[in-house]
Amino acid sequence: MFIIGERINGMFRSVAKAITERDEAFIRDLARRQVEAGAHALDVNTGPTEGDPADVMRWLVETIQAEVDVPLALDTPKIPVIEAGLRAVKRPAIINSTTGAQAKLATLLPLAAQYDASLIGLTIDERGIPRNAEARSEIALTIVAAALEAGISPDRLYLDPIVLPVSAAQDQSAAALQAIPTFKALCDPAPKIVVGLSNVSQGTPNRPLVNRTYLVMAMAAGLDGAILDPFDVELMAAMRTAGILLNQEIYAENYLGTAPGA
Amino acid sequence: MFIIGERINGMFRSVAKAITERDEAFIRDLARRQVEAGAHALDVNTGPTEGDPADVMRWLVETIQAEVDVPLALDTPKIPVIEAGLRAVKRPAIINSTTGAQAKLATLLPLAAQYDASLIGLTIDERGIPRNAEARSEIALTIVAAALEAGISPDRLYLDPIVLPVSAAQDQSAAALQAIPTFKALCDPAPKIVVGLSNVSQGTPNRPLVNRTYLVMAMAAGLDGAILDPFDVELMAAMRTAGILLNQEIYAENYLGTAPGA
Repeated sequence: MFIIGERINGMFRSVAKAITERDEAFIRDLARRQVEAGAHALDVNTGPTEGDPADVMRWLVETIQAEVDVPLALDTPKIPVIEAGLRAVKRPAIINSTTGAQAKLATLLPLAAQYDASLIGLTIDERGIPRNAEARSEIALTIVAAALEAGISPDRLYLDPIVLPVSAAQDQSAAALQAIPTFKALCDPAPKIVVGLSNVSQGTPNRPLVNRTYLVMAMAAGLDGAILDPFDVELMAAMRTAGILLNQEIYAENYLGTAPGA
Repeated sequence: MFIIGERINGMFRSVAKAITERDEAFIRDLARRQVEAGAHALDVNTGPTEGDPADVMRWLVETIQAEVDVPLALDTPKIPVIEAGLRAVKRPAIINSTTGAQAKLATLLPLAAQYDASLIGLTIDERGIPRNAEARSEIALTIVAAALEAGISPDRLYLDPIVLPVSAAQDQSAAALQAIPTFKALCDPAPKIVVGLSNVSQGTPNRPLVNRTYLVMAMAAGLDGAILDPFDVELMAAMRTAGILLNQEIYAENYLGTAPGA
């Protein structure tokens, strides 16, 4: 499992404050601790900033890179902000995200190709959020075909089946799970599948239980990665246990013996 | 999810003692509490008894039925013990279990037909435990075909993909998961799939974590039921949460809010 740490996001009040104050120590600490907790990459989301968001993105990227050496997922719908991040990264970045909408693909695929970036493709398009697994697959195919045409190989593409809050759209959490194996069959080598995990639990009274249950079910369906909170120790324990049970990670008695609840 | 409570099993020391002493109150309490905890049926396993195991089975069935009104899964490899249970049950029983071995099928299918019983079919045969999902499916097909021939409809058949301890045979826990969707495709209506859950965690230092992680992954793959410990509150919480996320149970904010860890 490829873990993208979700914590450097200006939607969190403490991060917004650190951004406003250009508090390097806070951001560096958050970056280092996420990597220590098991993140392989870090999401970078400026949130709603007071100043120029492109300048904030550049500052965040430089600050994080001064502390850790992992790929960064540039999480913004604004093209100039993505470009600011792409220019600042030392390692090839992950663009988070395109959709299947033609205008998005026409702009972001050339950028990904130019900067050697990976790309998260949300399976939504001009018509909004698809209603079922089949409609998700149609959009996924559009994204895969456009990416191949733009010279982006499938191993740089992460398809996101769009996880919605189970509290608001219960049938959609099942539909996103069903979409995962169909996405994997779209091309060879298969595209990678990633989810923004914590969406599923928005508005529920027990978010950690919902998050970790959904994550391991998605892993059973073929999930390759997730944007999640690596500080949630029970989530990380469930994920590693699932990796062992799926024979993706070496059986580690030592690990299981020290997991929460042992 | 169809839950078969696993606790009335003579392999547990306290149950063995209750059997030896014919302690009706102990068995009735164990039966009632399992049903209260969410079991839809109860497994009945005499364990290694001193007296006649057929007599123990009859006594257990009668004792349990005096307390709760749920189907009983007669869990023994001994034909006379199964017959003693089949004669004693008030509701159609579940025979736990046949395998794909011809001698087993030839004996147990007519018994299931005669007593209107359901049947758990372990996907092993004369050659032992299959190595992968494909070999499991071959045996599953043998069982399904023989059951149909014997007049047992698919809705009375539970196929078990054979869950082995991940500590001893790590690749087999993944193989059993992979087998589930292939079993579902064997006939229409699809056979039901059941697992003996706690096998997966034998010998691991954190059995509850392994059990609940495996259960929800198997549910994502299409599992219909499990023999498990309904007293494990975190297991039951994970199961109900998975049911909600798979859109099999109504979203229940009230439930999630009172689940362990909320």
